[in-house]
Amino acid sequence: MNAEIITIGEEIISGHTLDTNSAYIANKLSEIGIAVRYRVSVGDRVEDIEEAILTAWNRSAVTIATGGLGPTTDDITKKAICNAFERKLIFHDDLLKLLEDRFRSLHRKLPAVAQNQALQPQGADLLDNPIGSAPGILFQEDERCFVALPGVPSEMEAIISQSVLPYLRKRQGRGHIEIRRLRTTGITESELSEAIADLEPTQDHFRLAYLPGYQGVDLRLVCQASEEAEAIAKVDKLAEAIVGRVGAFIYTIGDQSISEVVGSLLTAAGKTVATAESCTGGLVAKMLTDVSGSSSYFLGSVVAYSNDVKHDVLKVPTELLQGYGAVSAQVAEAMATGIRILVSSDYGLSLTGVAGPTGGTPEKPVGLVYIGCAQASGVVSKKINLFGTRQRVRERSATMALDILRKTIIGR
Amino acid sequence: MNAEIITIGEEIISGHTLDTNSAYIANKLSEIGIAVRYRVSVGDRVEDIEEAILTAWNRSAVTIATGGLGPTTDDITKKAICNAFERKLIFHDDLLKLLEDRFRSLHRKLPAVAQNQALQPQGADLLDNPIGSAPGILFQEDERCFVALPGVPSEMEAIISQSVLPYLRKRQGRGHIEIRRLRTTGITESELSEAIADLEPTQDHFRLAYLPGYQGVDLRLVCQASEEAEAIAKVDKLAEAIVGRVGAFIYTIGDQSISEVVGSLLTAAGKTVATAESCTGGLVAKMLTDVSGSSSYFLGSVVAYSNDVKHDVLKVPTELLQGYGAVSAQVAEAMATGIRILVSSDYGLSLTGVAGPTGGTPEKPVGLVYIGCAQASGVVSKKINLFGTRQRVRERSATMALDILRKTIIGR
Repeated sequence: MNAEIITIGEEIISGHTLDTNSAYIANKLSEIGIAVRYRVSVGDRVEDIEEAILTAWNRSAVTIATGGLGPTTDDITKKAICNAFERKLIFHDDLLKLLEDRFRSLHRKLPAVAQNQALQPQGADLLDNPIGSAPGILFQEDERCFVALPGVPSEMEAIISQSVLPYLRKRQGRGHIEIRRLRTTGITESELSEAIADLEPTQDHFRLAYLPGYQGVDLRLVCQASEEAEAIAKVDKLAEAIVGRVGAFIYTIGDQSISEVVGSLLTAAGKTVATAESCTGGLVAKMLTDVSGSSSYFLGSVVAYSNDVKHDVLKVPTELLQGYGAVSAQVAEAMATGIRILVSSDYGLSLTGVAGPTGGTPEKPVGLVYIGCAQASGVVSKKINLFGTRQRVRERSATMALDILRKTIIGR
Repeated sequence: MNAEIITIGEEIISGHTLDTNSAYIANKLSEIGIAVRYRVSVGDRVEDIEEAILTAWNRSAVTIATGGLGPTTDDITKKAICNAFERKLIFHDDLLKLLEDRFRSLHRKLPAVAQNQALQPQGADLLDNPIGSAPGILFQEDERCFVALPGVPSEMEAIISQSVLPYLRKRQGRGHIEIRRLRTTGITESELSEAIADLEPTQDHFRLAYLPGYQGVDLRLVCQASEEAEAIAKVDKLAEAIVGRVGAFIYTIGDQSISEVVGSLLTAAGKTVATAESCTGGLVAKMLTDVSGSSSYFLGSVVAYSNDVKHDVLKVPTELLQGYGAVSAQVAEAMATGIRILVSSDYGLSLTGVAGPTGGTPEKPVGLVYIGCAQASGVVSKKINLFGTRQRVRERSATMALDILRKTIIGR
């Protein structure tokens, strides 16, 4: 089944806003076995939107459009839909009442402009928007369907999850779909593929996808089967086989970020952590505190960019700094121990390295990073070599540091 | 003049990779007065790429395609171009020699697969790729042109700057284009618009654009004129008028980030800085160290998430923490002074606030942030109230803190 995505709006077409909606929708469709074949963006001209809708309707089984449904945008997408499908806008009393009730429950009055949302194309099914005032619009025929959604990401995502995906899965009528995500770090896509290529399923209804990102590579397992138990059993078996081969690199099975995984482990163990960072310059602390509620297990961090700060604040001995250099296993371990003692945390996590693009030497090239991890029973360190830009070296080494902390907490 | 962008690749269409190339190209075209009207993405099927190229060629004066030119991708875009323009691939001895020379100068041997890059569509002009092995491909007629570029962002950007933009500007033959960017923070798009709306030029060849981002709003002034002096004079005059109204919010005229601006000022003054962060959790340190070479002026940071760390490491007096609470002007000032003394830096910059979504109270709601800035002559603080998600509150307050540091350094 081929799908097409249309994103509508001047902010997208002009490059001011990155088109994240398309990627979100393509990923969600892919999870239920629908492949996107075309993706189109147009600005705020009714005739361009109408042409894009008609082209998609004629070539794609599923079309999802986003944008141009807000009350202040002159309902430009609704106009284009009415032109394309030769319909008129009709007034929905029930929809107006629903909106008024929702605003009343928030102790607010429905703005006059929002009343436009009660005008909808004739013959369309309306999809409830649990967050905003613009409902989704659905046209369906035996062989194809067209969906228009608001462009605000949170509203679009809510309608996709609550209405569009269940509708499409029902339409497919292919029974149950089981999806599982195995998240890895510290291993490249080609190394992963070498290790597990022979496990890759070859059937169309059972797929393994590699999704590389800045922080690591995700594996996505998707199985469609008429019976739920069958789909789950197949995914279980494959996941188990993959864990058997590359389990050491998998930090979670599910959707959590590495910071959330580490946060859950620390919370469960009633332990705290602090970081001492050089080359990552605060990025590990930033990632840990991306999680709301992290104040219960994250005590703080010292970003020790200069040797003086490493010595004066973290108490790294001058002999180590002079004898081995700031980028060394000895200094990484002293930093991890130093921050742990300074703030009285259970774990101390440290990084020191050369993020580049300048500052590398033949002995200590750009991409060389030492990670230290201290706890009451002692301290360990690990040397890693990374390739790529300054941003990539920093993101990858921060993720690997959090993975080392994760393994330390679970005692592996 | 209408432009169209085609991005090619399964990783884009499937949503695994965000399409940042489209946004980059649209922004660059917009700077020279060319508006993008259509944007299309297709996967790795030759017939889909061919159809997209022909549709664009028939409706758009300028078409720029990216992706599918790498040596390992089976030259899929070149195949589609040959089909669409009814050409054959011909072998370019000179191109092979150029590639061999370039690899030799890097002490590497040209991989066999890269020899495919010497095969190019007949009749195309080739655009030098200063970074990679795939040249850009240009077809031109009186009224329209088609450009294909590699999908790797750094290679695409290099060919756009070095060849495509100069070519398009020459084609336009409209004389000189003067572009200037005024970067602001601490003021919303609507407040800006209210302050300077009457200054907005109304002519088509002279435009003012508002480009809002997470960290602030950029203003872009573009003027086209037959004489360079005229274009510069008009932009000068408008920029001066805008600075007269909202100069306090403009941190740079140009393309530098706020971290680069602050870095240049510190370098010029021979001064150093350190940060003490609570709610931003290391983000300000991370932003400062995004700049390569920042080790010459950035000494370090203490991320003081817990009150104990604020007290034990930054020496914030317990009376202040208990009397005013961690989120207060008094504690922000004590943190700024504390970090400055701890690491012996010239400036100390601090933040303490409620990033949300949890942790807010009626007195200290989510989005309340205090910023402190200390130097030898004393310490000041500023209270700000922000709206939005945790990420937005953190990014916006980090940018505003760096702006306060900037003003302190220049004595404003």
